[in-house]
Amino acid sequence: MTTDTDTDTDTDTDHAHHGYITDKKRYLHRLKRIEGQARGISRMIDDEKYCIDILTQISAVTSALETVALGLLDDHLRHCVADAARAGGPDADAKITEASQAIARLVRS
Amino acid sequence: MTTDTDTDTDTDTDHAHHGYITDKKRYLHRLKRIEGQARGISRMIDDEKYCIDILTQISAVTSALETVALGLLDDHLRHCVADAARAGGPDADAKITEASQAIARLVRS
Amino acid sequence: MTTDTDTDTDTDTDHAHHGYITDKKRYLHRLKRIEGQARGISRMIDDEKYCIDILTQISAVTSALETVALGLLDDHLRHCVADAARAGGPDADAKITEASQAIARLVRS
Amino acid sequence: MTTDTDTDTDTDTDHAHHGYITDKKRYLHRLKRIEGQARGISRMIDDEKYCIDILTQISAVTSALETVALGLLDDHLRHCVADAARAGGPDADAKITEASQAIARLVRS
Repeated sequence: MTTDTDTDTDTDTDHAHHGYITDKKRYLHRLKRIEGQARGISRMIDDEKYCIDILTQISAVTSALETVALGLLDDHLRHCVADAARAGGPDADAKITEASQAIARLVRS
Repeated sequence: MTTDTDTDTDTDTDHAHHGYITDKKRYLHRLKRIEGQARGISRMIDDEKYCIDILTQISAVTSALETVALGLLDDHLRHCVADAARAGGPDADAKITEASQAIARLVRS
Repeated sequence: MTTDTDTDTDTDTDHAHHGYITDKKRYLHRLKRIEGQARGISRMIDDEKYCIDILTQISAVTSALETVALGLLDDHLRHCVADAARAGGPDADAKITEASQAIARLVRS
Repeated sequence: MTTDTDTDTDTDTDHAHHGYITDKKRYLHRLKRIEGQARGISRMIDDEKYCIDILTQISAVTSALETVALGLLDDHLRHCVADAARAGGPDADAKITEASQAIARLVRS
């Protein structure tokens, strides 16, 4: 993200919108790759490629998505959840409950 | 299937190359949707949407990919592996080993 | 196993009751180990060991159970499903549907 | 826990050693049940029960272990990680890195 005004007047307590700005380019690059892989799976199905080879590709995309999810989650814990913990109060508890539910969805999906 | 020449001489009992032709349209439709979801995740990251909402989307895509994989695997067992089992010999064993390895990748990814 | 003489009168084409007899000792040995690990996790919780160390143990047990499941599934495909495929008819289809459902439970658990 | 009098003189800010003491009985009860299920799986293999039924049991144990792990992780975030975040410094970062690695193991196992 190239937004040029967001740090102009901010103090150093500003963590950008949701804290994962530092790796944004890397995330976008990975997602671009995942999209390409999904398109490749479409093509393999359309061309009726060997089923096992398609399954191998799907496992690769699933793993790549998990890597993105684990990275975003780490960023979220490091910024958003840690900030809430420092602020304390019911919001801290709510943030952790929300993070735990997201983790459960990842573990079970 | 858009290829217009491969059915010229085939009868309608033809199962096509790797047996999953019956649901091909449905698979392609799902993959198209998964691609769109992956693009949506890119956009969410670019717009710095709330991390938890992005994780929810990733879990949805992962589940959708798993559903595709499980469908393809069922087709594969039903056609390719069952055919090999009927033919017997070392090829039958090899097909099952290959299927088991693909299952292991899915379970562990 | 209650029949300690079950090979006395059998020919070598006998696959035993459900086909996974060949590795039975190995499976039982692994399950014994998994039980011990589960007991160890109980003890860790009772002694209030460090949470992350307990999570590491749980991941190890989950992986060990998955290895057992994937082994049993391979045996099942190799014997029970392949036999049904050879016999043909609706039973073959039913066996594959049943196997696919078990695979889906493993992938999603 | 070896201190059977630990609440006598403590104030309500005491988090116990690793913070999950509140649910300890419930965790121990669940683990006891998981051990019993693992023993049951051993018996099913020994009795050569139908493979698919054994796989169903294994999926149940895996899910039960995941539920324990997700509960412990929630407790860990809520107490240990939140405390470290409040204290700040390199320890806070280290705790989050450690938690992220444990989450990755759970997601991938």
